[in-house]
Amino acid sequence: MTLTKKPVTGMKDILPREMQIREYVQQLIRTTYQGFGFLSMETPCVEHIENLNSKQGGENEKLIFKIMKRGEKLKINENSTEADLADSGLRYDLTLPLSRYYANNAASLPSPFKALQMGNVWRADRPQRGRFRQFMQCDIDILGEASNLAEIELILATTTLLGKLDFHNFTIRINDRRILKAVAAYCGFPEDSWDEVFIVLDKMDKIGLDGVAEELEKEGFSKEAVEKCQDLFLTVTPDTDGVRMVREKLDGFLDPAYADGLITIMNSVDAVKTADFKISFDLTLVRGMSYYTGPIFEISMDEYGGSVGGGGRYDGMVGKFTGQSTPACGFSIGFERIVMLLLERDFQIPDAAARKAYLLEKKLPDEKIRQVIDQAMEERGRGMIVNLLVMKKNRKFQKEQLEAEGYTEIVDVFAR
Amino acid sequence: MTLTKKPVTGMKDILPREMQIREYVQQLIRTTYQGFGFLSMETPCVEHIENLNSKQGGENEKLIFKIMKRGEKLKINENSTEADLADSGLRYDLTLPLSRYYANNAASLPSPFKALQMGNVWRADRPQRGRFRQFMQCDIDILGEASNLAEIELILATTTLLGKLDFHNFTIRINDRRILKAVAAYCGFPEDSWDEVFIVLDKMDKIGLDGVAEELEKEGFSKEAVEKCQDLFLTVTPDTDGVRMVREKLDGFLDPAYADGLITIMNSVDAVKTADFKISFDLTLVRGMSYYTGPIFEISMDEYGGSVGGGGRYDGMVGKFTGQSTPACGFSIGFERIVMLLLERDFQIPDAAARKAYLLEKKLPDEKIRQVIDQAMEERGRGMIVNLLVMKKNRKFQKEQLEAEGYTEIVDVFAR
Repeated sequence: MTLTKKPVTGMKDILPREMQIREYVQQLIRTTYQGFGFLSMETPCVEHIENLNSKQGGENEKLIFKIMKRGEKLKINENSTEADLADSGLRYDLTLPLSRYYANNAASLPSPFKALQMGNVWRADRPQRGRFRQFMQCDIDILGEASNLAEIELILATTTLLGKLDFHNFTIRINDRRILKAVAAYCGFPEDSWDEVFIVLDKMDKIGLDGVAEELEKEGFSKEAVEKCQDLFLTVTPDTDGVRMVREKLDGFLDPAYADGLITIMNSVDAVKTADFKISFDLTLVRGMSYYTGPIFEISMDEYGGSVGGGGRYDGMVGKFTGQSTPACGFSIGFERIVMLLLERDFQIPDAAARKAYLLEKKLPDEKIRQVIDQAMEERGRGMIVNLLVMKKNRKFQKEQLEAEGYTEIVDVFAR
Repeated sequence: MTLTKKPVTGMKDILPREMQIREYVQQLIRTTYQGFGFLSMETPCVEHIENLNSKQGGENEKLIFKIMKRGEKLKINENSTEADLADSGLRYDLTLPLSRYYANNAASLPSPFKALQMGNVWRADRPQRGRFRQFMQCDIDILGEASNLAEIELILATTTLLGKLDFHNFTIRINDRRILKAVAAYCGFPEDSWDEVFIVLDKMDKIGLDGVAEELEKEGFSKEAVEKCQDLFLTVTPDTDGVRMVREKLDGFLDPAYADGLITIMNSVDAVKTADFKISFDLTLVRGMSYYTGPIFEISMDEYGGSVGGGGRYDGMVGKFTGQSTPACGFSIGFERIVMLLLERDFQIPDAAARKAYLLEKKLPDEKIRQVIDQAMEERGRGMIVNLLVMKKNRKFQKEQLEAEGYTEIVDVFAR
């Protein structure tokens, strides 16, 4: 059988230049988040199929790479369905496995548990530019903390990281699922259609307020509800005053504590932030996943023209495993997008070590080889990057190549 | 459907304490190997099924986690076989994907290419203590270097790493596949049974020389061949003199350059080694994989009573993808075993950052919260690990827990 050189569809080989940036970002993520008290943890890449299909993953459940049963357990006949043949699959996110992990290991974990996860996830999405079927996710989550301290810490940790990576002028958009629901109730949309309403609201940045109103009417919602909604969105401002206004308008539909919580988060983050960004109230922010139960947030970056991360509170998910409600809140940064942006701006790793190469003439006597290796080992011990290479016929070309690879010192070693 | 709390069979959740050691070892691996000029790279975890099944993986090919085709491509009927339903699988090692990667990307890579890979691999092995179905492999390989400089650099890099991890008194056992073949020819074993002979030889450390001789006779090999073999193994010494003796005895069966190469490797490593280990010639070393073509090596550690890594030259594999022969040589360290040994000896990470926690009384006014966060952010900026936690009712117990987690400074923050 012929072998295939290309990677499988939609996945990619990572070349050394990109790897260097990925490793730099990963290391910065670790030191930054660990500075906030987050602890690294890991779940297997393979997850039970029944967990993956438990309706926690939304649309992602349609994109699972399923793993076939093995040995005797695999029985194929004319009645076999896809579901009969698979017992597990590749995880499509890190949130569901984290909930399982917490349910399984809570007794061995601190409370609250501040988790840091970096790992690959897989989605059998239609391949498209810049989107891959295997990609790295990087999440921080706080489990067991009901207060807004969780949201504040998550937002501060994430924005501190972005600042260290030299990203500026980005915006943290924030909203609350419970405010969204109160808005829908206040406007008079029927409760069973709220998800539908939210999907339309989510398009605000693409089609504008008029477009949203038009689409809501087209969907058959009452003119009165749509106008009430339009009116609210026209007057709301993207700051804590906006939250206060909403709190008053939604009186009777919204527990004012939720609005106050949002104000505390916004004020705290704004007062102590170390990076150059703004946090703004965005009543149109919906976030796709239905598991969110409280504050939700997203990073917008003009440079990218889209979200480079997001998260929120999802107090219900761990309870699906344990039967016991556990407060939970997480923030995921778009690792692949950040790496892409750094590659595009030709990011240089700060304080990269000096590179030196020795070119060894062929048939060097053993004694001479030993001398060179000895010196190289001493230099490596001092933190230098030292490469030993056999001299090629076209030595000039070889040196040009090495210079292009970042070698600043190249030493020829001849037999005599 | 009920959700499952435990990880899938044979795979494990990694707790923070183990993660800390894993990350420390991984970072040390990166800095050490990169100091030798190795470049990090990555292949997807998912590989074409035809590549995985190409007879390069030996016994591992029976242990593949296969991934089902998706959408229209999946057609299940009464004639479907396992092979019809899978188009890919999880990689069982890093060597086969590296060969594909090199074949696919050689034009964008330096020559020779010194590759560093750390990544998970999957084998549907029978679960047993300390062996998991997902585990981390850590390989360095040099592609495009035919000279023994490759073997020397690989062994020096690996042993330097082990030294930094405070492993001592280990042994690098070394042999050469071509010497093994010459031994078999010299003794008079029929060529088509050599692999069988090598499998028995491989048991030497378990059943001894007499056991090996007995088993060879039982397999039906001639008494004369077995005695010749026994005689050779009785007289060979585990040093360069042993190699020289073998070179003379096998005159006519062995290209003496292979023996000389082994002597160069052993002398060079011995002369410049920075860690406390010995390198010894071991004529019984076989290494399982049939793809090896030249020198082979393995790390033995008394502490562990088994191999904690190994490798060798495999000049044929890249050519299976390109049709063009490419010299290749690699060394894989047993990452999981090393982590296990470090956990067992209660390894402490050197220079771990100081940990400080603030306990915030509930219902602290926003202004007070801001003050504390402000101070924490300043300390985090100075490289400290600082955690903010809501004060619990049982504050004494909470503090004991934090102390157990390594927090050396705990500050109470009250409303007034």
